[in-house]
Amino acid sequence: MPELRRDPVLGRWVIISVERGKRPTDFVKLSQKRKGGFCPFCAGNEYTTPPEITAVRRDCSSPNEPGWTLRVMPNKFPALTPEGRLNKMGEGLYDKMNGIGTHEVIVETPDHGLTLSTLSEEAFEDVLWAYHQRLTELKKEARNQYVLIFKNEGESAGASLEHSHSQLIALPIVPRTVKDEIAGAKRHLEMRDRCLFCDIIYQELSDRRRIVYETDNYAAIAPFAPRSPFETWILPKQHASAFAPRGDSFAELAVIFQKVLRQLDALFGCAPYNFMLHTSPFRDEENDYYHWHIELKPHLTKMAGFEWGSGFYINPTPPEDAARFMREADV
Amino acid sequence: MPELRRDPVLGRWVIISVERGKRPTDFVKLSQKRKGGFCPFCAGNEYTTPPEITAVRRDCSSPNEPGWTLRVMPNKFPALTPEGRLNKMGEGLYDKMNGIGTHEVIVETPDHGLTLSTLSEEAFEDVLWAYHQRLTELKKEARNQYVLIFKNEGESAGASLEHSHSQLIALPIVPRTVKDEIAGAKRHLEMRDRCLFCDIIYQELSDRRRIVYETDNYAAIAPFAPRSPFETWILPKQHASAFAPRGDSFAELAVIFQKVLRQLDALFGCAPYNFMLHTSPFRDEENDYYHWHIELKPHLTKMAGFEWGSGFYINPTPPEDAARFMREADV
Repeated sequence: MPELRRDPVLGRWVIISVERGKRPTDFVKLSQKRKGGFCPFCAGNEYTTPPEITAVRRDCSSPNEPGWTLRVMPNKFPALTPEGRLNKMGEGLYDKMNGIGTHEVIVETPDHGLTLSTLSEEAFEDVLWAYHQRLTELKKEARNQYVLIFKNEGESAGASLEHSHSQLIALPIVPRTVKDEIAGAKRHLEMRDRCLFCDIIYQELSDRRRIVYETDNYAAIAPFAPRSPFETWILPKQHASAFAPRGDSFAELAVIFQKVLRQLDALFGCAPYNFMLHTSPFRDEENDYYHWHIELKPHLTKMAGFEWGSGFYINPTPPEDAARFMREADV
Repeated sequence: MPELRRDPVLGRWVIISVERGKRPTDFVKLSQKRKGGFCPFCAGNEYTTPPEITAVRRDCSSPNEPGWTLRVMPNKFPALTPEGRLNKMGEGLYDKMNGIGTHEVIVETPDHGLTLSTLSEEAFEDVLWAYHQRLTELKKEARNQYVLIFKNEGESAGASLEHSHSQLIALPIVPRTVKDEIAGAKRHLEMRDRCLFCDIIYQELSDRRRIVYETDNYAAIAPFAPRSPFETWILPKQHASAFAPRGDSFAELAVIFQKVLRQLDALFGCAPYNFMLHTSPFRDEENDYYHWHIELKPHLTKMAGFEWGSGFYINPTPPEDAARFMREADV
């Protein structure tokens, strides 16, 4: 059973996930890549994964058979396990709880050769709908306080399988980074009676230097203090605390999201990246202070001692330059 | 001129360091390694580095000539620059300041083939004395609020040169991670009137399961909630807020520090790692709440979307197992 443990100094939580590698010799295997070998996410190999939770099947095919264009299933090596009751415990000074939660995989395409940037627009919309559907479902379970949706693209960004997929982890606590963002946003609301993110968007749209791309209702910006070169955030221009389609559609979000990914591809030729969807925690989902957004972080530099020790980041590319390179990329 | 920028949501600072790579094409070069090529840190190549600040020379040789056994000089590609006055500025919503600070390199040995774990004990002590001497010197400059000493060993842990060296960055602000540690430690002092780290050491020495190694006056422990497998902290057993020799000697610290590095070498065959020295900020150096320590973080897993998005870490190795493997390592 995995365990959630809290560092007593920083309050930082760690998941001790015993289902994964463990002994010193296991870490050597981590660098194996499954390039070209058997792929459990390819059409025809459905039998090798846990049974699907949901799928997009436009051809009336049966669950766990080929015919799907998108497929969601439990992670075969979950960081948290869905069974059991949540127990919070102390151990002297320390705090821990058992690792109850949900870890799912969203396979974005049956085609091993495609990436999010080369998917059809329709398939990309399906991915966003799948995120929304899983959030809506997992919200119904009282023990889930937060669902983090994220993607690791490329081995150096942490992907252990090459076939394009995203993941979600439902957690019994709100993650620290989201809590910290909420604390900052609440302070701003208190002082100024406005949403901090709305203010950022307003300033960026006036300033223009850090605008990466823009549609009628969404903005892609290089944040003022990016952790890494070419970091890009996508936000709805109008206030919205929880991730949701606009009207009844994800079409416009799919366009701007895919545009940004294609800009990165044009500049770096399939750079490894991570993205994370930050939305309001379930317990206070509709509010004035938080503003959902996607943080896209290309993996171009390495986290080193200074970053680990300080919590600061050294970034060699000013975001004004990054945004200009992105705007001028040949997409 | 580099710039320090503050993220308005999280309060996280970023150094925009324009002296380093910048254009998209520059990032490809980052993966070049200088293995076997010309090494600016080798004896005889002193003329290729900025003039030395201090050195250990037991043979009465002249500065910037061979004969040294340890050498400290300014980083040739500094993240911060030492010249100029500190200016704090706003930019609409945002906060920034110019990147004033000091970035130095401590070359730990003239021998390209040695590492910290294979240095002589005397040379290791010299490294610790160099850290202490630079801290003492840099404290005298009023604008320095903090000096972070750290090491990147191995390319994947962020080392751009292979020759064994540590670095220090003197900062005009206390880094976020240290601030957060201090906040946690102060809360504990307020509630219990004891140092949190002293309490941790007491619990660990009683429990024993997470003890990696121990000398009379120092303990090496696997922390209860480690960010990464085999993370190890080294702390003085008796309360001490600021990094200092014990009595007049670093001999015992050198022994335990090198022992831990040799345990890691025995388990992983020269694993890449980072370590960071956390000591009290200069403005409140001697206090009851903080406790200096070294955080040693082997680079065995990858930071991925979940970690970036949540601030949580997934660690596949329970620290009780890691400590046991370390204790049993064939050193």
